Amino acid sequence: MSYNSFGHLFRITTWGESHGPALGVVIDGCPPGIALSEADIRPFLDKRRPGTSRHVTQRREEDRVRILSGTFQDDRTGFPVTTGAPISLMIENTDQRSKDYSDIRDTWRPGHADFTYDAKYGVRDYRGGGRSSARETAARVAAGAVARKVLGEDIVIRAALVQMGPRAIDRSRWDWGSVEGNDFFCPDAQTAALWAEDLDLARKAGSSLGAIVECHVAGVPAGWGAPVYAKLDSELAGAMMGINAAKGVEIGAGMEAGAMRGEDAADEMRLGQDGRPVFTSNHNGGVLGGISTGQDLVVRVAIKPTSSIRIERSTLNRDLQETTVSTKGRHDPCVGIRAVPVAEAMAALVLADQKLLHRAQTGREGPAL
Amino acid sequence: MSYNSFGHLFRITTWGESHGPALGVVIDGCPPGIALSEADIRPFLDKRRPGTSRHVTQRREEDRVRILSGTFQDDRTGFPVTTGAPISLMIENTDQRSKDYSDIRDTWRPGHADFTYDAKYGVRDYRGGGRSSARETAARVAAGAVARKVLGEDIVIRAALVQMGPRAIDRSRWDWGSVEGNDFFCPDAQTAALWAEDLDLARKAGSSLGAIVECHVAGVPAGWGAPVYAKLDSELAGAMMGINAAKGVEIGAGMEAGAMRGEDAADEMRLGQDGRPVFTSNHNGGVLGGISTGQDLVVRVAIKPTSSIRIERSTLNRDLQETTVSTKGRHDPCVGIRAVPVAEAMAALVLADQKLLHRAQTGREGPAL
Amino acid sequence: MSYNSFGHLFRITTWGESHGPALGVVIDGCPPGIALSEADIRPFLDKRRPGTSRHVTQRREEDRVRILSGTFQDDRTGFPVTTGAPISLMIENTDQRSKDYSDIRDTWRPGHADFTYDAKYGVRDYRGGGRSSARETAARVAAGAVARKVLGEDIVIRAALVQMGPRAIDRSRWDWGSVEGNDFFCPDAQTAALWAEDLDLARKAGSSLGAIVECHVAGVPAGWGAPVYAKLDSELAGAMMGINAAKGVEIGAGMEAGAMRGEDAADEMRLGQDGRPVFTSNHNGGVLGGISTGQDLVVRVAIKPTSSIRIERSTLNRDLQETTVSTKGRHDPCVGIRAVPVAEAMAALVLADQKLLHRAQTGREGPAL
Amino acid sequence: MSYNSFGHLFRITTWGESHGPALGVVIDGCPPGIALSEADIRPFLDKRRPGTSRHVTQRREEDRVRILSGTFQDDRTGFPVTTGAPISLMIENTDQRSKDYSDIRDTWRPGHADFTYDAKYGVRDYRGGGRSSARETAARVAAGAVARKVLGEDIVIRAALVQMGPRAIDRSRWDWGSVEGNDFFCPDAQTAALWAEDLDLARKAGSSLGAIVECHVAGVPAGWGAPVYAKLDSELAGAMMGINAAKGVEIGAGMEAGAMRGEDAADEMRLGQDGRPVFTSNHNGGVLGGISTGQDLVVRVAIKPTSSIRIERSTLNRDLQETTVSTKGRHDPCVGIRAVPVAEAMAALVLADQKLLHRAQTGREGPAL
Repeated sequence: MSYNSFGHLFRITTWGESHGPALGVVIDGCPPGIALSEADIRPFLDKRRPGTSRHVTQRREEDRVRILSGTFQDDRTGFPVTTGAPISLMIENTDQRSKDYSDIRDTWRPGHADFTYDAKYGVRDYRGGGRSSARETAARVAAGAVARKVLGEDIVIRAALVQMGPRAIDRSRWDWGSVEGNDFFCPDAQTAALWAEDLDLARKAGSSLGAIVECHVAGVPAGWGAPVYAKLDSELAGAMMGINAAKGVEIGAGMEAGAMRGEDAADEMRLGQDGRPVFTSNHNGGVLGGISTGQDLVVRVAIKPTSSIRIERSTLNRDLQETTVSTKGRHDPCVGIRAVPVAEAMAALVLADQKLLHRAQTGREGPAL
Repeated sequence: MSYNSFGHLFRITTWGESHGPALGVVIDGCPPGIALSEADIRPFLDKRRPGTSRHVTQRREEDRVRILSGTFQDDRTGFPVTTGAPISLMIENTDQRSKDYSDIRDTWRPGHADFTYDAKYGVRDYRGGGRSSARETAARVAAGAVARKVLGEDIVIRAALVQMGPRAIDRSRWDWGSVEGNDFFCPDAQTAALWAEDLDLARKAGSSLGAIVECHVAGVPAGWGAPVYAKLDSELAGAMMGINAAKGVEIGAGMEAGAMRGEDAADEMRLGQDGRPVFTSNHNGGVLGGISTGQDLVVRVAIKPTSSIRIERSTLNRDLQETTVSTKGRHDPCVGIRAVPVAEAMAALVLADQKLLHRAQTGREGPAL
Repeated sequence: MSYNSFGHLFRITTWGESHGPALGVVIDGCPPGIALSEADIRPFLDKRRPGTSRHVTQRREEDRVRILSGTFQDDRTGFPVTTGAPISLMIENTDQRSKDYSDIRDTWRPGHADFTYDAKYGVRDYRGGGRSSARETAARVAAGAVARKVLGEDIVIRAALVQMGPRAIDRSRWDWGSVEGNDFFCPDAQTAALWAEDLDLARKAGSSLGAIVECHVAGVPAGWGAPVYAKLDSELAGAMMGINAAKGVEIGAGMEAGAMRGEDAADEMRLGQDGRPVFTSNHNGGVLGGISTGQDLVVRVAIKPTSSIRIERSTLNRDLQETTVSTKGRHDPCVGIRAVPVAEAMAALVLADQKLLHRAQTGREGPAL
Repeated sequence: MSYNSFGHLFRITTWGESHGPALGVVIDGCPPGIALSEADIRPFLDKRRPGTSRHVTQRREEDRVRILSGTFQDDRTGFPVTTGAPISLMIENTDQRSKDYSDIRDTWRPGHADFTYDAKYGVRDYRGGGRSSARETAARVAAGAVARKVLGEDIVIRAALVQMGPRAIDRSRWDWGSVEGNDFFCPDAQTAALWAEDLDLARKAGSSLGAIVECHVAGVPAGWGAPVYAKLDSELAGAMMGINAAKGVEIGAGMEAGAMRGEDAADEMRLGQDGRPVFTSNHNGGVLGGISTGQDLVVRVAIKPTSSIRIERSTLNRDLQETTVSTKGRHDPCVGIRAVPVAEAMAALVLADQKLLHRAQTGREGPAL
């Protein structure tokens, strides 16, 4: 049991608080011989980094990652590769404004973990949320970049925002190409423009908006995962629900599967042009019986609106007195936006782990068929 | 890593195929000194048992459980208690009709795990679905009964069906008392009556219906769970998504959280009449930051319609030839019904484990406050 | 954490008490497609079985093992193979004499686990030692037989008794061929003859003798294991010390390494006739830095004399009164003898697990060189 | 499975190479509310630190540890305590002489992990031994200091050197008071004086000496540990065998148990003056059936002589050519000396973990009796 670890064979352990000196992650079980340098990690941290548009928190964090162990640049080969030893990644916290935290210290912010941390531990690093801060997801994203290297380029992981507040995208306009072209990782440029207005209004009202992230993974061979308690969808669900502020997870048809009929839900199989099995639909999101089908994995996760809002809310303080609280400061009006690279990272971590598990039990990387 | 185990400290390992001689579960880490006999387990198995109404599979299984180890009836005390040793529970399979399975053997049924098992393992016990059969959930339900004993009577776990096919219950009519009074574990008797018609129609059409199960847990003290990767909601999500045919999991507001505003999603706190903290709403489903708030846990899981339908569907056989398949035999037209006791069992298993984890780290069973 | 499980990827969970209805083991993570029937397991159980000579307990146990799950005999192939699903093995207890256990119930036998079980659990299945009985090792031996199938025939695991009481074998007379030819698994026939006399004397005196088991494994490729906390020697040491009554474990030179000089302890390398690396000695027992060298693994384990002796010993009863105890009944005068197949089984379990771990991380089964 | 982690509930993960920028450890699962600062860790690192006498390596390492996360100094309480979040400890490597490593790079040093790392990973950080260097034990010692805080002051862990090369101490002169008074952690001052001569001779001859460390733990209540695969002695054996250069582990009578008779090996019980059970001997080293008896735990570990010696030895290079190697530089002539604080740390880590496991399963910290 490790409270701050994730994965079975490709296993990460993260540490650090929002306003401590640094945060980091140790990756254990990485295969040896994989080319890896800080440049492989940086683009993913940049994608998650705050302060890149008016729609995310204005905290400036450079998020420079250092590889402290686990790679080695042999002078015979000239490039750094993983050695099989644990890879320690560290990001120093540079933009910790010294401020008065006495309000958060003594008052439990509604919707936050303040009360539950006090209930569990009797003590809490209240500065900026401490361990419960979304800052921890920088460590996941860094580790996810390494997981992608383990998976190789044939496996393509990409996520997008498909709903913000009550407004969903128009799926007929889905274009992966436009995801990087707006501030919301939105695959539908027209909806993105409307979201900008929605979010400006919400921010000005001192409020915040929820969102839904959808992650697609292409290139996973049929056969990864396992039945019963190690199901690929179970692993993905646990991973995605472990993202800060997540409240729901769907695979394929998701909650809609409850409304379906058998003949609609069961994806039919045909022979593809290359003589390989193909499916005529993907209501099961690429997983059957806990094992990948070879289709795209499709996972959605709902992220609640941040509870750090300026609108005043009723609550209690640590002395059990009724009071109110209103959160000032630099906060994401829609934390779902920055959850996009985090969801990708969690998918990468699950799949790197599954790759190793699959070849452990079967001696193969691909299907038996 | 254990593919067929679940839990960290209160840990179960299940085994057995649908048409093998028996199935069972080994429970490891159970606290000692808990009164336990087969009579504690039977009612839960009876609830899950097939053949109890026309709406579930007509397979007759007595599901008699035997405790093979881990309890001891000392002649000084006169009643059997757990000893701290592993508890082995076994259920013999009694209603295995001998039949010709050559159709399932060679043809991949759409929506089933046939293809993915072949892809992963290259071999498959095709009789009745083998390991992928919902028969395995009998072992979970038996173990869940033991988990309930570990939790004690102050923690009340109960689930209900809240949607079948496109028809959802009317929540204003929610009555736990009526759940046992109909064939669907439905908390709304009027909807139950309509479901009976819906399901008769579907069955006669050779089709099946999806469903949504909702599970409530009362009495969990604030403070159970842990941040980051051991989140209580992450554990619950993984557990529920591990139920056969599950495609979506929600905690509290669930996917709807994506459509909400911050001031609506954050549950406010007030002082209760007993001077203890209370919340004025429960959009977070009893979990904040991965740790229980002391409110009811609320979890929903969507179960897809069974893929075992009489309607003919296109598929491939193992020789990669296109063919069609239509499933005869005794199948649940709505597997979601029997998922109700399974969801309860999974919740019990997660919480018994969390109880032990919480007292391991904190030395307490309740909150620090 | 699993108290009754062993292994990481090839993982066993055992259950059952000495005088319960049955005992068993669930093997999880076994690779699919391995031919396996009860006939593969029986010879190893026979080797461990009591009642085969006057030097071991006269309890008659048929130890018939049943495979309850995890294998499948497809009518196309005609022979049973593992499917990748959990393999459940069960052995029914047939020779449980009903007797009066009130003496063991209330009195803590010196050198036994009676006191410590009461201290930990407050309750204890005292019949025949319950869970602490060496009967549990039947489950390990059965699982070890499956592990051998995973390892294949190129890896040869065999153990022998090298010391009984104060008398050690003469290593210059080591002959694997004579191990099966005497009642002691002794590789030195002359010493075996002396042990027969030693043990007769001890048994008649109501006493018992300790022993040392030595296990050799040939055919392990260089590269299995891992540094730091997953060292192959660390895994072997934990495994062997987990055998009932074990008090010491040695790898290669073992405790003698403490008395050595650097130039004697470091095994030198030369080029073998086949152009592969060879070592000129094996003081390190086939492991360097936690990873196999390709030499024979050499592990020794010291087994204390059984504490079940007729000689009267001072002790306490559960009411904390001073008393004496003398153990009657059928007991091994030297439990070390039957520890020989158990040590082989533990080695097989460790190595099957290491094989899967190695190919998980490296994608290879053999060395990189 | 974590290659670089140790422990189940109190769990550490270490990282870092001998000549990398830093090394460290992440401690997960630490109970909250324990006072902890760097000053609690420093004395243990100082004890392990090289360069403190002529008998250990002359590498100068300040070994200054930084706590990067997991503690919090609340301005209301004024002192730093653990928060239950992961504790990240980092030690920067300051004395890395830049030198030419091409000899170690290409040649496998006998008795070292050079060959096996290459066999496993195909790549190796050869600078100073990389991950296989005893430098890693600094992280264990730092974590062990935290484990001691979890155990509290009633549990006293102390180790000593009881043999160096062929010369053992005289146990009749055992005096814990003299352990800190010589360069060898020797409890027998007269033998320490002889060891000084022995080691000077060995060092001047370019050789090295093995040693045996003995660790005693007082104050462990009866009832910690568990039967079968989670035995306290099995955990201790795995832990101690995981120390660099360890080749043998003994609990209580250890290997000598193989030579004993039943009436000598079974520790008898009597009533102590305080009315509590006492044992009249401790051949079982404080463990029966895998569970602590309440007596002192007694564990010994044999450490082979370092293979880094000036005496020329035969070996191979990476091109599989025969060659010789002689290790220059600053090396411990007896690595067993510095293994003393490491053995204490491993014992502390095992026991902190067992404390949490025991209260998880039983709800108690002490015995049921």
